[in-house]
Amino acid sequence: MKKLINDPADVVPEALAGIEAAHPDLRVDHANKVVYRADAPRSGKVGLVSGGGSGHEPMHGGFVGLGMLDAACAGEVFTSPVPDQVLAATRLVDGGAGVLHVVKNYTGDVMNFEMAAELAEAETGARVVSVVTDDDVAVQDSTWTAGRRGVGVTVLLEKIAGAAAEQGRSLDEVADVARRVNAGGRSMGLALTSCTVPAVGHPTFELGEGEMELGVGIHGEPGRERVPLAPARDIAAMLVEPVLSDLPFDRGDRVLCFLNGLGGTPLIELYVLYNEVHRILTGSGLDVARSLVGSYMTSLDMAGTSVTLLRVDDELLSLWDAPVRTPALRWGV
Amino acid sequence: MKKLINDPADVVPEALAGIEAAHPDLRVDHANKVVYRADAPRSGKVGLVSGGGSGHEPMHGGFVGLGMLDAACAGEVFTSPVPDQVLAATRLVDGGAGVLHVVKNYTGDVMNFEMAAELAEAETGARVVSVVTDDDVAVQDSTWTAGRRGVGVTVLLEKIAGAAAEQGRSLDEVADVARRVNAGGRSMGLALTSCTVPAVGHPTFELGEGEMELGVGIHGEPGRERVPLAPARDIAAMLVEPVLSDLPFDRGDRVLCFLNGLGGTPLIELYVLYNEVHRILTGSGLDVARSLVGSYMTSLDMAGTSVTLLRVDDELLSLWDAPVRTPALRWGV
Repeated sequence: MKKLINDPADVVPEALAGIEAAHPDLRVDHANKVVYRADAPRSGKVGLVSGGGSGHEPMHGGFVGLGMLDAACAGEVFTSPVPDQVLAATRLVDGGAGVLHVVKNYTGDVMNFEMAAELAEAETGARVVSVVTDDDVAVQDSTWTAGRRGVGVTVLLEKIAGAAAEQGRSLDEVADVARRVNAGGRSMGLALTSCTVPAVGHPTFELGEGEMELGVGIHGEPGRERVPLAPARDIAAMLVEPVLSDLPFDRGDRVLCFLNGLGGTPLIELYVLYNEVHRILTGSGLDVARSLVGSYMTSLDMAGTSVTLLRVDDELLSLWDAPVRTPALRWGV
Repeated sequence: MKKLINDPADVVPEALAGIEAAHPDLRVDHANKVVYRADAPRSGKVGLVSGGGSGHEPMHGGFVGLGMLDAACAGEVFTSPVPDQVLAATRLVDGGAGVLHVVKNYTGDVMNFEMAAELAEAETGARVVSVVTDDDVAVQDSTWTAGRRGVGVTVLLEKIAGAAAEQGRSLDEVADVARRVNAGGRSMGLALTSCTVPAVGHPTFELGEGEMELGVGIHGEPGRERVPLAPARDIAAMLVEPVLSDLPFDRGDRVLCFLNGLGGTPLIELYVLYNEVHRILTGSGLDVARSLVGSYMTSLDMAGTSVTLLRVDDELLSLWDAPVRTPALRWGV
């Protein structure tokens, strides 16, 4: 295992210390492993809290800041944060207008966020609403999930709901926007290589030189099938077609297309693949209104990619375009 | 070789097509493989042109846009752009105020940009000034270079000189700012793995499981020495100390610290390493005024990193903070 780390047991706290050192707008509650806005809580603003296992950076700590999340809880690598972390984050960002929990659909995450929401409501009286993302069309149930897994839509949801909260909308309104994003988004991923969890020291799974894992999960959990290595144009079709047919997306739909890298894939490959994805989408009569190309939801050093499509309307586009200032997404401010 | 590509021979034109599809503010001259601003040329504004071999994305095409480059020439992977490409880019962005060429110090790049500058001046009468970056302290001469190699400072220079040009400064003033950035910046890199050039199909060099290449070049060319795999805190020292002692940086200096990933290294590792780098810098009495952490100048899929330090003053900081809207760096607009 070759990684730029110290003791594998210290990866998460040390990465959080690095985030705090690099980004003066952010603070870290080191005891609870929570990244939060230096100006939290904002009085009268709905607080947005997300989190999950580490190893998916910049998700979620890199999405904390103006116009996106107020706080993010970092679990151990590929391990849900515990309820106490989520409770601490909820307290830190509660400005009196309620708190939205954005939770990816993995059994541990859903359970621990639920428990934290109950604790927060009991202890502080804060109103907490949870929205669960489950956009991965690859598999119905999987190693760590009942139902579909939450993947790329989570990034788009955090941006769009974050903008709605920044505008001063109510908790119910922000939650509605968040649910609309999850309902209108679908994703599918693919791995060329496994990742290696630092504390484990060897690859999570084995893939032959000529194989890919189609529909892989962001922890390396199995997808739909092993398929032979294929050119980018075929990979684009393998990812886009199941996404298009699932919602389904229709001719004339406006979409945001998010092409994500899984951590070990360089940008030049993502652009080669984006060219193919964009061609299929426009060939299918879709209007690609916005795009996002880069590594925003990773699986440590896994080489691979995921495609997320989100059906958008004027309101969602305007929230997407609204100012954001976080380590990973920033514009307009 | 496992890559998200089609025919290895088509990687560069297809990646450029992907950039054009993903970024409506940009245009691509496909015949000449030039990415340029859709609103070029801007009358009365100094035009900034850079370029080099492909495989370093987002550099340089991802730095084209308001407040940074006006055009970028993409050579084949790890191959200098030819003079005709640079000439085409120079014509595209010449708004009457002259053109600055930003050139990394590699023999082919320097020669071809020089030839293009002469052709442009002869053909169009445009005034062209070149600034060459040579910030890599690792080695004096190397496989592809007489003198030091141009690396991470190039990214900072393109941002800062781009802001100066956007403010309407003259060609001489913009070139002065650019030279100041190169003079005040130093870098050093390290590889954990080789990269694989698509058209070659196997790793450029071999590194044992327990080895790192200290001072590696961005094409995988040799650095100072092979050293045993080490923890992040030791790696930080190996990279920062030669940089600090070279300029030299002094106690009380304000610096911009750029920690770069080489393409195959995930962000969580960069933050672990940044924590160590920041600790050394503050422990040495430096004031880290700004930081940039991410993969901005890559070597295809190489796992590894580089550290760039730039001594800054109020003027350089204000140019760094000025609005920029490119695929890879964006803020304030």
